Amino acid sequence: MLGATGAVGQTFIRCLAGHPWFRVAEVAASERSAGKSYAEATRWIEGELPADVAALTVTPCDTGSVRSPVVFSALDAAAAADLEPAFAHEGRVVLSNAKNYRMEPDVPLVIPEVNAGHLAILEVQRRNRGWSGAIVTNANCASTTAAVAMAPLHERFGIRTVFISTMQAVSGAGYPGVPSLDILGNVIPYIKDEEPKIETEMQKMLGRFTGSAIEHASFVVSAHANRVPVEHGHTTCLTLGFERKPTVEEAIEALREWKGEAIVRGLPSAPAMPIRYRDEPDRPQPRRDVMDGRGMTTTVGRVRADNILDLRLVAMSHNTIRGAAGGSILNAEVLVQTGVIARSGAA
Amino acid sequence: MLGATGAVGQTFIRCLAGHPWFRVAEVAASERSAGKSYAEATRWIEGELPADVAALTVTPCDTGSVRSPVVFSALDAAAAADLEPAFAHEGRVVLSNAKNYRMEPDVPLVIPEVNAGHLAILEVQRRNRGWSGAIVTNANCASTTAAVAMAPLHERFGIRTVFISTMQAVSGAGYPGVPSLDILGNVIPYIKDEEPKIETEMQKMLGRFTGSAIEHASFVVSAHANRVPVEHGHTTCLTLGFERKPTVEEAIEALREWKGEAIVRGLPSAPAMPIRYRDEPDRPQPRRDVMDGRGMTTTVGRVRADNILDLRLVAMSHNTIRGAAGGSILNAEVLVQTGVIARSGAA
Amino acid sequence: MLGATGAVGQTFIRCLAGHPWFRVAEVAASERSAGKSYAEATRWIEGELPADVAALTVTPCDTGSVRSPVVFSALDAAAAADLEPAFAHEGRVVLSNAKNYRMEPDVPLVIPEVNAGHLAILEVQRRNRGWSGAIVTNANCASTTAAVAMAPLHERFGIRTVFISTMQAVSGAGYPGVPSLDILGNVIPYIKDEEPKIETEMQKMLGRFTGSAIEHASFVVSAHANRVPVEHGHTTCLTLGFERKPTVEEAIEALREWKGEAIVRGLPSAPAMPIRYRDEPDRPQPRRDVMDGRGMTTTVGRVRADNILDLRLVAMSHNTIRGAAGGSILNAEVLVQTGVIARSGAA
Amino acid sequence: MLGATGAVGQTFIRCLAGHPWFRVAEVAASERSAGKSYAEATRWIEGELPADVAALTVTPCDTGSVRSPVVFSALDAAAAADLEPAFAHEGRVVLSNAKNYRMEPDVPLVIPEVNAGHLAILEVQRRNRGWSGAIVTNANCASTTAAVAMAPLHERFGIRTVFISTMQAVSGAGYPGVPSLDILGNVIPYIKDEEPKIETEMQKMLGRFTGSAIEHASFVVSAHANRVPVEHGHTTCLTLGFERKPTVEEAIEALREWKGEAIVRGLPSAPAMPIRYRDEPDRPQPRRDVMDGRGMTTTVGRVRADNILDLRLVAMSHNTIRGAAGGSILNAEVLVQTGVIARSGAA
Repeated sequence: MLGATGAVGQTFIRCLAGHPWFRVAEVAASERSAGKSYAEATRWIEGELPADVAALTVTPCDTGSVRSPVVFSALDAAAAADLEPAFAHEGRVVLSNAKNYRMEPDVPLVIPEVNAGHLAILEVQRRNRGWSGAIVTNANCASTTAAVAMAPLHERFGIRTVFISTMQAVSGAGYPGVPSLDILGNVIPYIKDEEPKIETEMQKMLGRFTGSAIEHASFVVSAHANRVPVEHGHTTCLTLGFERKPTVEEAIEALREWKGEAIVRGLPSAPAMPIRYRDEPDRPQPRRDVMDGRGMTTTVGRVRADNILDLRLVAMSHNTIRGAAGGSILNAEVLVQTGVIARSGAA
Repeated sequence: MLGATGAVGQTFIRCLAGHPWFRVAEVAASERSAGKSYAEATRWIEGELPADVAALTVTPCDTGSVRSPVVFSALDAAAAADLEPAFAHEGRVVLSNAKNYRMEPDVPLVIPEVNAGHLAILEVQRRNRGWSGAIVTNANCASTTAAVAMAPLHERFGIRTVFISTMQAVSGAGYPGVPSLDILGNVIPYIKDEEPKIETEMQKMLGRFTGSAIEHASFVVSAHANRVPVEHGHTTCLTLGFERKPTVEEAIEALREWKGEAIVRGLPSAPAMPIRYRDEPDRPQPRRDVMDGRGMTTTVGRVRADNILDLRLVAMSHNTIRGAAGGSILNAEVLVQTGVIARSGAA
Repeated sequence: MLGATGAVGQTFIRCLAGHPWFRVAEVAASERSAGKSYAEATRWIEGELPADVAALTVTPCDTGSVRSPVVFSALDAAAAADLEPAFAHEGRVVLSNAKNYRMEPDVPLVIPEVNAGHLAILEVQRRNRGWSGAIVTNANCASTTAAVAMAPLHERFGIRTVFISTMQAVSGAGYPGVPSLDILGNVIPYIKDEEPKIETEMQKMLGRFTGSAIEHASFVVSAHANRVPVEHGHTTCLTLGFERKPTVEEAIEALREWKGEAIVRGLPSAPAMPIRYRDEPDRPQPRRDVMDGRGMTTTVGRVRADNILDLRLVAMSHNTIRGAAGGSILNAEVLVQTGVIARSGAA
Repeated sequence: MLGATGAVGQTFIRCLAGHPWFRVAEVAASERSAGKSYAEATRWIEGELPADVAALTVTPCDTGSVRSPVVFSALDAAAAADLEPAFAHEGRVVLSNAKNYRMEPDVPLVIPEVNAGHLAILEVQRRNRGWSGAIVTNANCASTTAAVAMAPLHERFGIRTVFISTMQAVSGAGYPGVPSLDILGNVIPYIKDEEPKIETEMQKMLGRFTGSAIEHASFVVSAHANRVPVEHGHTTCLTLGFERKPTVEEAIEALREWKGEAIVRGLPSAPAMPIRYRDEPDRPQPRRDVMDGRGMTTTVGRVRADNILDLRLVAMSHNTIRGAAGGSILNAEVLVQTGVIARSGAA
């Protein structure tokens, strides 16, 4: 794993503890940490650090030091820019959380229940770039929350317009991240560089793979991104316009019935149902719903008619599990199913 | 004052402390409290209880017990329904925070900087109802935040469409209000009965008084209302469509220059400027901006272009001062200026 | 279960979900709720309401309506005063969380790892009171946190003096409990009636059963009780004086080695170890440690020498699991082991 | 001012805005900030940055660049070690918040109401060190809260023993300081290096100046220091033993009557009364009481008898105003009164 000591890296380690297929075999981080044990190098911030990982020696983030064929990357954008392609070039499958390659035409941006099919573009990627490995990305955490909720509605009714206002947890900013003096009893109506991601990534994820390219969906997105004093779980208020306007009942039915792409079902990290629709008028709520499906379920509620467009709803999911580490691991599990990753691959 | 022991009643008392024109002469509350001193009857929750008010004896909320010609009402809807008209009938000027009469055609719903002119409809109200007194209302606190920010833009560019997503402070729910177990580290994407108010009140406030009636503005509003763990200050994310699309610079200029109705300037509770536009990318913030203008200023920031409509922005103001007690008092001050209230009127 | 709709009642239901020996067969609450389904009668505040309990019809809290031989009671003191003895008189074993009978000489006040042996006093209780049933109590939640941490030290070194300062979670006040306006960004240095409980209950729990009576330990306790904006988990700062002063190492060794009374080991609700000693300088922390041992482990840290007495340390445990519902259930499990409760007993 | 861009530096600037005697003439910070305007160099975190300070150019922290005869220092310990003596050597009066010189025998550690008389040791300091200037320090913020509350009791009854448990605000750790992921909904029972300061500084402040030396008070202090999710205001729970045990009434009377040293009264930053005793059972509370006396009043409550020692009480004061910047400014005001600082001295 690359970037193993940071907040997303730690979430990877928690999500991989006891994983039936993958095992954290290597932990790589900045030069400053290299050579220390993982336990020494890391300020572990949540839950229990597994003993086998604690004892690993941190290696530098280079293709010589890291040998695993499957590489989970929690690198930030600055580090990912050069390192992720280097690993892909050396034949490794890189599961990336960085923003750098998400929007490249030949790089799949995947939430498996939504668009596992896009992984087929890896063939194009390898041909284009001469890589024996690959880069597979997952989206910004707020985009992920909304994209899952929108997927079943887009499939059936065709989304045209999206107004989204987010209330995002502090863990989305990593560690140390948001100073407590900035957020205790406060709302910050701004997250640097966040709105452009939310406004572009969902069209790719909800787009169509033509066999040779990913055709982005044509809806338009307008976002307000806000930070709130919540630990985990991004809440998104969505107002949607459709090609074919659904009734509230039709929309709820679509959300309830949706199972997502068949290849995902039964995978170790897949929740029983990717979406849980709740009838209570005041749900979803991050503190109460965020760990549903071990953090992999997207909770949706409050589907109701809109005064201007067609429907409104609220969707919430775990930003560092569903929206980062857990999503990457599920991507890797699909790649095991499709044979891109050998089942014995350590991480 | 009616409903003097609750959270809004307490804010009235704080805002009236040292007021040059009004003085809290009577405190009325439910039968349970009547006969006690105000200090005994009240769980005072913020700042210092003025000694002169502490010593007042709580009276019942009826027109026989309460003698003041000017009556500030912090009654809830159930109590306000019958009591407020009874006082108006007896010749008192009632400054109401309840929702009951806000949308009645002959009842002004006033934020003085925005629509002090609507107070002229009191003549119609008195004629219609045979009252020697009057009822003047102020709006829902979230509507108030947005309406102030929208007023200068509506004046110059004509608003047609409003998407609004709110993040509202817990003090908006009164005391004891929101249980801490519901809101610590959490977001509740629902406030009972709130969205319909936000979707209808602003058209009235930004409407036009024809001389005999208030013609509502014709824009349409779609709202998401959320509760967040903030003490005071409602933050609203607004996305706006206009009849004549302003540039970002024109919009900011309109916000910066706006002084509101002339009659308000220099009144004791009027802030120096009703709107403060902040350039920092991450403002307004409730904890940092809420007390600007002693809680009467609306802070606006993040005016930027939109992908679908014309403009986006964020507005924030104090929900129990600007959005409730302070707003009522400013209404009363205008009525002193127009002669409806005699300057010697106690509250 | 009595008082099933409140916060502690709900914790009982969560803790009993999937229990191998007990099953929630009946839910009793106030007259207002009786006749409704449990789902209707309850504002469920955390996690998932088990479907089988949701469908139960709420019964009144009387010995005619509630038939189970084992009765978990989450009643408040006012209701418990008459109801708990009535059930005991009718042959039921009542596991009580109320304060009423805790300090009665013939009522055991039990944390099983600490003083399961005190349950033998039930024979005296039955003889004294002519009951075929029994009342078994567990302690105040803050007393429980401290008593577990003190037990191994008292056993080996004899505690003489205890200064304790607590920082208690809001869930200790039930639901709706502490208003958010009182506790957001705040500390309340007072919890009504709490300090006297903390100052008297531990001597009973750490006392000695003589065969016919419980001889209270003779140490003296001085408490400061504080409420802090934490959801679950009471943190207690302890400064201790001993009959035989241990070194820091001896104290840590005693805490690490302590297994508690043998009869408890392996019971369904018993954690692997009742105490977890953590070496990090900044632990225990409620948000990070509270769910250790599924909420039944007491986390202890910061054992260090004192300037005035002998040792200082910090202990933290889950106030509604270890300190209430989970503790009651573990008491019942011990009573199954000792034969007081038949293993088939529903709750 | 030295260290002007940090959290304490910012509090200095807020406290000095409109000061009748002092004016922020120079702002000095690390090399990284030097040459920028103060507004550019600073992430201003609270309230309004005064326009005249915003426009100042940040200078380096050396005696050549900073010319003011009075130097407020918000330097951290690493920087203060060499810089503060250098300024004192060059004839400047340094008002220091760093820990480095607090415990030096010839350096006064002053809360003026408590021990303004200790400033007379400056003569010894100058003689010893050959300085034409001076260093005057103020104490750790938690020590300050407790020392003020203890001063009137020590004067009358002689304190012998102090158990103190603190609940300290996040602003005590500066900015960015405590990460929100560490403290949201949490308590951290540890603040690095804090307990030793609390355990030694109060004896010096409550000590006696003999004419040539400061004789420390002989009481012993045992501390638990905790961090809580509060923005401003350190709450301290104190349990006290005395040479002559006061009754609760005598102690409250002593607290109520205490005016502190006469020279402080009427100074610009001095609160009307240094201590406010509150009768309510649940006070002091940081969010409700912290700004009493513009942040310079120490609020005390809950004086009650103790089971082991003599008395218990709770004291709270503002950690960055009373406990840092405001305290330094009050020290400087006393030095103006005593003639050590010329009244025209800029800061």
